[in-house]
Amino acid sequence: MFVTALEKRDDEIIQPGARSWSWSTELVRGAPLPSSCCPPPTTPPPNPTSSMWSQKRKVLMVMVTLGLVAALIRSWTPRPYTSVDVRPKQETKMEKLLADRLVLSERKYDDIPYRVKESVLGLLAHNGCVCEGETRSINLPYANLLFPRVSAQNLHTVFKESELDEVKRRRAQEYNSFQKRSQTAADLLIVAEANSPLQYPTQGVEVRPLKTILIPGLALIQKTRERYSVNFTATMGTFDIAAFVDEVAIKGEGEMQMTLSSRYLSALNRQLQFVTYTNTLFHPNTADTVQFGTDGHQSVFTIKVRHGVTPKLYNPGPKGEYNMSALVTIATKTFLRYDKLQDLIDSIRQFYPTITIVIADDNEHPKPVTGPYIEHYIMPFGKGWFAGRNLAVSQVTTKYVLWVDDDFIFTANTKLEKLVDILESTTLDLVGGAVREVTGYKASYRQTFSLDQGGEDGDCLHIRRGFHHPIKGYPNCVVAEGVVNFFLARTDKVQQVGFDPRLARVAHLEFFIDGLGILHVASCDDVIVDHASKIKLPWGQSESDKAYYKFRYPPSSSDTVQTRSELFYFKNRFQCLTRN
Amino acid sequence: MFVTALEKRDDEIIQPGARSWSWSTELVRGAPLPSSCCPPPTTPPPNPTSSMWSQKRKVLMVMVTLGLVAALIRSWTPRPYTSVDVRPKQETKMEKLLADRLVLSERKYDDIPYRVKESVLGLLAHNGCVCEGETRSINLPYANLLFPRVSAQNLHTVFKESELDEVKRRRAQEYNSFQKRSQTAADLLIVAEANSPLQYPTQGVEVRPLKTILIPGLALIQKTRERYSVNFTATMGTFDIAAFVDEVAIKGEGEMQMTLSSRYLSALNRQLQFVTYTNTLFHPNTADTVQFGTDGHQSVFTIKVRHGVTPKLYNPGPKGEYNMSALVTIATKTFLRYDKLQDLIDSIRQFYPTITIVIADDNEHPKPVTGPYIEHYIMPFGKGWFAGRNLAVSQVTTKYVLWVDDDFIFTANTKLEKLVDILESTTLDLVGGAVREVTGYKASYRQTFSLDQGGEDGDCLHIRRGFHHPIKGYPNCVVAEGVVNFFLARTDKVQQVGFDPRLARVAHLEFFIDGLGILHVASCDDVIVDHASKIKLPWGQSESDKAYYKFRYPPSSSDTVQTRSELFYFKNRFQCLTRN
Repeated sequence: MFVTALEKRDDEIIQPGARSWSWSTELVRGAPLPSSCCPPPTTPPPNPTSSMWSQKRKVLMVMVTLGLVAALIRSWTPRPYTSVDVRPKQETKMEKLLADRLVLSERKYDDIPYRVKESVLGLLAHNGCVCEGETRSINLPYANLLFPRVSAQNLHTVFKESELDEVKRRRAQEYNSFQKRSQTAADLLIVAEANSPLQYPTQGVEVRPLKTILIPGLALIQKTRERYSVNFTATMGTFDIAAFVDEVAIKGEGEMQMTLSSRYLSALNRQLQFVTYTNTLFHPNTADTVQFGTDGHQSVFTIKVRHGVTPKLYNPGPKGEYNMSALVTIATKTFLRYDKLQDLIDSIRQFYPTITIVIADDNEHPKPVTGPYIEHYIMPFGKGWFAGRNLAVSQVTTKYVLWVDDDFIFTANTKLEKLVDILESTTLDLVGGAVREVTGYKASYRQTFSLDQGGEDGDCLHIRRGFHHPIKGYPNCVVAEGVVNFFLARTDKVQQVGFDPRLARVAHLEFFIDGLGILHVASCDDVIVDHASKIKLPWGQSESDKAYYKFRYPPSSSDTVQTRSELFYFKNRFQCLTRN
Repeated sequence: MFVTALEKRDDEIIQPGARSWSWSTELVRGAPLPSSCCPPPTTPPPNPTSSMWSQKRKVLMVMVTLGLVAALIRSWTPRPYTSVDVRPKQETKMEKLLADRLVLSERKYDDIPYRVKESVLGLLAHNGCVCEGETRSINLPYANLLFPRVSAQNLHTVFKESELDEVKRRRAQEYNSFQKRSQTAADLLIVAEANSPLQYPTQGVEVRPLKTILIPGLALIQKTRERYSVNFTATMGTFDIAAFVDEVAIKGEGEMQMTLSSRYLSALNRQLQFVTYTNTLFHPNTADTVQFGTDGHQSVFTIKVRHGVTPKLYNPGPKGEYNMSALVTIATKTFLRYDKLQDLIDSIRQFYPTITIVIADDNEHPKPVTGPYIEHYIMPFGKGWFAGRNLAVSQVTTKYVLWVDDDFIFTANTKLEKLVDILESTTLDLVGGAVREVTGYKASYRQTFSLDQGGEDGDCLHIRRGFHHPIKGYPNCVVAEGVVNFFLARTDKVQQVGFDPRLARVAHLEFFIDGLGILHVASCDDVIVDHASKIKLPWGQSESDKAYYKFRYPPSSSDTVQTRSELFYFKNRFQCLTRN
């Protein structure tokens, strides 16, 4: 984004050639568009006090009285604020205007025939999405292993017939409110008119709430005529000018509608370089629609009104080798497996003796877990898997958080530095590693997501094993969207996405699904952690193992399926899930 | 945003007048812009099996062999993915091109003089921000109460001289990475050229990753000539056409550069209605820059590439009266004040017997806190204030969360239904109430924030008491940006902002500062909770009170100030804080 700096040195008419004023221009990427101006004002020096004591006392008395009176008046007289409606807005006139213009434009060529191109037409979204799995004609042995079959689940089926209508109604209502809260005029479709004499910014104009900016890029390039004129209209702010240009008439300075006109086109265009917009209707994150027009032409553009994104930066510590304890916190949740947890801790300490380990524990009879750099949190019994995950990550104070399950074992191959390096050097937010089973089989599960729009019934989510593409410079890594439960991630991003505490037992991909559009995810198969106990061998299981499996995989897992499906249907507004 | 539905019924050339094809148009606000097409494909029926058993066995053998060979080949031959660089990008050619064009356009009128308008110029951002408080010439009694003085804090002063340079360097580096991760081409300043024969969409075009959309609003309105031609260029996707129009030559179908040309303008424009864009370079949240040009003219617009925002909707329960237990969870943190905590719980139960209360507890010797619908979480001793707040809200499973301090008392005036009503009916995210002290004085603290850009040194945050505007329909409520510690909020929003666990002792506004641009905040003074113990009376303090105050307000609070200032400086990138 472009910042034009206007440095003031003298408040007088500047003649051409005189260089009292200097223009400096600077490309500032992404910043809102103010124009810097005068050097900062200085505090006026204090006034000297009067010499006579009695006079001073009289003055003081008067001032105190005035002060008290002022304070009283101030507290009794409400400030002249205008009350603002913050209820969700219906479709505005502007939206209707834009929509109508587009329809008219498209209808012009209705009579010209065309032949469909099948291959492309098929890629466009359908009016609804398809919720079907694959069926096989012949079931070959190992077919599922070699060519995993796609299964499909119509999510509305988890609700009883009798309650389904009500659930649909409520979901539509909640979604509608959500859309009204999260969308602004900056999401509207706007089409630029052809052959318009107006030059204007189509994107990238931003102002902080209640602040003022110069609107960049405005001009009128029109054929010779008697008089040239442009007008501005806004709904959440006012227009003004930062400087006067001779021979330009201005009407509506400081108002929501302003007109500039002149006999000289160059004067008008010079004036247009000084048009300002001031946001007057407070909102923390919205956009105003500006209409900029001249005789016979009207353009529309938006100005985003918002505080810049407040960063959440972490101090990475001194340059050079990564200080792992300052950069990374290890987080895990434990239940019924204190022995495995202790094995995990011991294995971590061999390689990272001072790294903080945060443990969320929802055992019925919690035991102490102690040691340096260990933080142990006790939860209500059985509160659950994702509740525990959310708790653990909520306590992390370092730049990165490493998620591990309580039955992992660190080995010499568990080089966290590699994972830190990839996040320090790229724009990725989360990178998973690989988990090696007792059998020696190493798994770096990767999934990709595809979302098809489904209209009012909700979208269709398609989950497929695999990844999107390899990563340049990191030959063992690929970009995916779902990875194993062994990953390093930016703490602020994980906290922003969160682990839904309603998921008590089995859940995994829900985190990545909630992270869609937020997390940029990768998976590297050269950072490996061992998995103490994935395979359920009938011998070699301790009592706690047995109790764990009984809890973790209850005979009837229908409650779990019910909860997960209900959440996909209602919370995420899906109608269908397909996966292989 | 506009959705154009193209329904296919027959794959043949449609003559003008024949209505086998129907166009339906539908205004869809905010949705990405696909075009719906054919009815969903149906699964082909399974093939009947052969009658002879030996033939079947041979066929099976062949198929199994082929299948195994295919699987082997598939696992050995890597898919033809192109490796992608995900390191932060430097300024692209496109950005430079846009910047240069704007400079040229502005320099045209350099020789025309102007006179500054002081009142407006002063509102524009300066080249740096001012970090000054107010000094008073005469210190009147009660002056600070009536007219609170503004104090200013230059944040860099909390660092030692010797370490300041290094801290600045690291902060600049972290901020730079943050910007590269969070900005896309959709933030660039783009200016539409005047008198261009091109009609095109300037905002609102969006595609889901790896999907295809029709680009709306494209047209060429040009004076008569021999041949009309347009070209398209993209960097993260390819162009194609969904249908063929006679007399239009197409070059580059399915590629990143495509050209359309025709002798007939109307045919070209009809063809332009079928231009599609397919995202080919996966990224969860980015934007592609499309150049759309014709002879002598070049326009630029962006297409957002991202999954739609996955909603996090909560089921509000049946229509009618608010089911408070289903809608609201009360969250609090406790330390050394079990007696007050119990008073709080007892008072809540008088009015809301089944509402869930989540308690984060970082006492050194935790005591059990039991009762129905109580969730008690034990933290490591003294882990801290915001860590406890973050823990508590991380466990909430209802649509709304009510924050209370552990020394509040609910009364008949603590009508949570009023707070629920305002959030259910408006786009607000958080609404604070009022806290009544022992003395009877009722406080609904409200603050507003103002952020001035400060360039490389960081921004200046100005905190002022007061509010922005009243709310229509809610005469006791106003919109502000910081409120008391008694508020009802949307759970997903509070979890998204979070309470920074690095803030161990005193902190309050940091939550609202982290929420800038995310939370829409209000304050209502007619929902009141009593405060058991704000005033530190020397008599009537229990032993636990004394221990609490000793911990909460240590003699030297410099550590706290240090931490808070360091966080403001580094994490949020401020250089200055002023407040009254």
